[in-house]
Amino acid sequence: MLIDDLPAGRVVRDPDVLRGFAHDEAEWAPFGLPALVVRPHSAEEVQAVVQACLAHRTPLVTRGAGTGLSGGANAVDGCVVLVTDRLTAVKEINEQERYAVVEPGVVNDDLRAACAERGLWYPPDPASSPWSTIGGNVATNAGGICCVKYGVTRDYVLGLQVVTGTGALVRLGRRTAKGVAGYDLTGLMVGSEGTLGVITEVTVRLRPARAAERTVAGYFGTTVAAGEAAAAVAARGILPSALELVDRHCLAAVDRWKNMGLSADADVVLLARTDAPGALGEHEAAEILACFEQAGATWAAQSTDQAEADALFAARRLAYPALERLGPLLTEDVCVPTQAVPEMLARIDAAGQRHGVLIANVAHIGDGNLHPLLVTPAGDEAAKKNAQAAFDDIIAGALDLGGTVTGEHGVGLLKQPGLARELGPEVLGLHHAVKDALDPHHILNPGKVFPERSRA
Amino acid sequence: MLIDDLPAGRVVRDPDVLRGFAHDEAEWAPFGLPALVVRPHSAEEVQAVVQACLAHRTPLVTRGAGTGLSGGANAVDGCVVLVTDRLTAVKEINEQERYAVVEPGVVNDDLRAACAERGLWYPPDPASSPWSTIGGNVATNAGGICCVKYGVTRDYVLGLQVVTGTGALVRLGRRTAKGVAGYDLTGLMVGSEGTLGVITEVTVRLRPARAAERTVAGYFGTTVAAGEAAAAVAARGILPSALELVDRHCLAAVDRWKNMGLSADADVVLLARTDAPGALGEHEAAEILACFEQAGATWAAQSTDQAEADALFAARRLAYPALERLGPLLTEDVCVPTQAVPEMLARIDAAGQRHGVLIANVAHIGDGNLHPLLVTPAGDEAAKKNAQAAFDDIIAGALDLGGTVTGEHGVGLLKQPGLARELGPEVLGLHHAVKDALDPHHILNPGKVFPERSRA
Repeated sequence: MLIDDLPAGRVVRDPDVLRGFAHDEAEWAPFGLPALVVRPHSAEEVQAVVQACLAHRTPLVTRGAGTGLSGGANAVDGCVVLVTDRLTAVKEINEQERYAVVEPGVVNDDLRAACAERGLWYPPDPASSPWSTIGGNVATNAGGICCVKYGVTRDYVLGLQVVTGTGALVRLGRRTAKGVAGYDLTGLMVGSEGTLGVITEVTVRLRPARAAERTVAGYFGTTVAAGEAAAAVAARGILPSALELVDRHCLAAVDRWKNMGLSADADVVLLARTDAPGALGEHEAAEILACFEQAGATWAAQSTDQAEADALFAARRLAYPALERLGPLLTEDVCVPTQAVPEMLARIDAAGQRHGVLIANVAHIGDGNLHPLLVTPAGDEAAKKNAQAAFDDIIAGALDLGGTVTGEHGVGLLKQPGLARELGPEVLGLHHAVKDALDPHHILNPGKVFPERSRA
Repeated sequence: MLIDDLPAGRVVRDPDVLRGFAHDEAEWAPFGLPALVVRPHSAEEVQAVVQACLAHRTPLVTRGAGTGLSGGANAVDGCVVLVTDRLTAVKEINEQERYAVVEPGVVNDDLRAACAERGLWYPPDPASSPWSTIGGNVATNAGGICCVKYGVTRDYVLGLQVVTGTGALVRLGRRTAKGVAGYDLTGLMVGSEGTLGVITEVTVRLRPARAAERTVAGYFGTTVAAGEAAAAVAARGILPSALELVDRHCLAAVDRWKNMGLSADADVVLLARTDAPGALGEHEAAEILACFEQAGATWAAQSTDQAEADALFAARRLAYPALERLGPLLTEDVCVPTQAVPEMLARIDAAGQRHGVLIANVAHIGDGNLHPLLVTPAGDEAAKKNAQAAFDDIIAGALDLGGTVTGEHGVGLLKQPGLARELGPEVLGLHHAVKDALDPHHILNPGKVFPERSRA
């Protein structure tokens, strides 16, 4: 099948539209211009697009909502961009077996809402959940706020339908609770950022709806003190259902944008939740509060006002777009051992001061996943250079502390130098071998995750 | 390094010893005789063995305790068998970050005990836990009793050190809570049954120690009624921490062996546990009890006697070795959707009757993972043929009901025909491609999981 044989409305060649699909939200990553954009309506149409790209050796970049922060969905010059925004069916929600089968373009929050109607819960909740798609979440193995207790996207993907690098449409994985039939190719596809296959259907495991959460908030004078409070929670063996850090730069930016009346009379706010039921939840909330107070919180309390608690979490989710209004953001995603969080936060502060860069911080601090956001004024090339230097220092610091360069955003383009340092040449060689095996003609998102190497 | 350069005591050539390492517990699977057995004391010695096998293109079969039930550790004629029984160090248990780093030969229960001393818990608990090793558990992605609530081995493996098929000693994965730096090669190694790498170190995630469990037991007149009770528990949204089925053949065999005074005045016993704390646990136990009674239990109660409850679970664990005393067992490991469990149990009964085969049943019934055990008198070739026919019928039934041929034992040799049916030629082709990529000379456990294909 040729791409021109697709039904009307699938192929877009309007240059203005093409430009709109040229890159994701990683403002610092390079991108090219696609030759065309395709919006398939079925798995078979996706397969036709892959086969056409194979026939012409044309690079294919798959994209969901384009909310990625590492450049993973950025176009290569002359490529085909396959957009999943016409693949939005929730095909099945099975209450007894607790799974859902969805097309890749279903928005995360839409799936969550559909599950909630049946008393079920799909946990992975990236901050982009109102916009990002399940397909994109799977491609990047997205995390989120509740990961600290409930794990990441990979922990919920039971099965996939994908088009492979040789143009075959196959099913991987299963719908049963357990299964070890062959290699875990499902897990291999999750987080491979569109470089090993194009996802056409996702089967996710669901959980029963959970108990209402209790919220504990604490204000701190320094990010480091907040880091110590979070490390203390982990050391006590408490498993909170959320443990987030938001600093005053983020709170102020959200407040200026949304006028939410957020108090910003603290340098850092920690937001913790527990969904343990009954007396255990009460106990965990009290323990978290004690950790906050002992680490030197200037104010801390269990929230008795659900609306206020929800507003604080909404501010957490809006931090990124709010700060984006101040200038292009360079987003970090390092993850370090929880006990190294105070030291890592101190190194982030120091990197900002050393290079004269404004660094705002949000963090999934409960699992050591930090998102320093490096803010630069638009068009200021010197500031951009300084931000890049601070970015490199932070990466080096995370690796030095036993961490990883990317906790949940993926490698895309921005994290490639860090990835090469983290993995080393031998493990990178294994990645090349897997890529060669599953995408022998290198048409699937070439140059993402790791650079193309010259081949014999 | 040549194998002969290894320090004294590493290499065994005594034919009697070699015979002892020729096969695992899958009594029906074919096996050959190893040329030698090697017991390395370090990762570097493992690497030397792999490099020596590479140099001579000698097949290498890695084995832990040899408790596998699919033939995955069976020797190939003239191979080297690498035994991990000298690699038994628990290198680190990190209480703050909740992980442990162990050598592959550490026995599952030993790791569990070491963790318990620190208030931590390593959940995966195959019935072989008193004997089987973490390395073997990782190689087969072992399940167990608590999987129904807490997942399988893969859910706990954060990182691995492995020797690759090209003889490199590499680290995969991480020690942080989250991480998406590159492909999930850690997850790919888990469950690959020694065909993609030799594991030399495992980093596992731990959980905080949990609340004491409540036990509910129910006696049923038929396996099918018990299946309906289990399906009802799932349908109510209860997540038990164990939900096991043991039939009267198993109870009687354990009783004859261990004289535990087990009541066998029922055809089937269901054993459920909940570890939900406090009032929620009480509520869940009551709900489970109601499910049992409504499904027609002839007797059901929440156990008030911990020793009695523990004895019932001990009998569950001893079912396999107890039945083995009656004759060679052919062990099934199908996993079906939980709502299909009653139908699957009926089909197992029918297969036994059709072919005149005694089939005992134990099952992780809460996640649909059934272990029909086909008992044949030793040396009776006609009975063996009948058992194979019943085995094939059960596999066909599981696939027909949307299940998988192996829930937790692995493919090894016995499940290869079923695997080929389950995956189909295209997905099997992806397996070959991955194998070729990571073990280009096919020295790592060749012919396991899927047959070797002729190569150009």
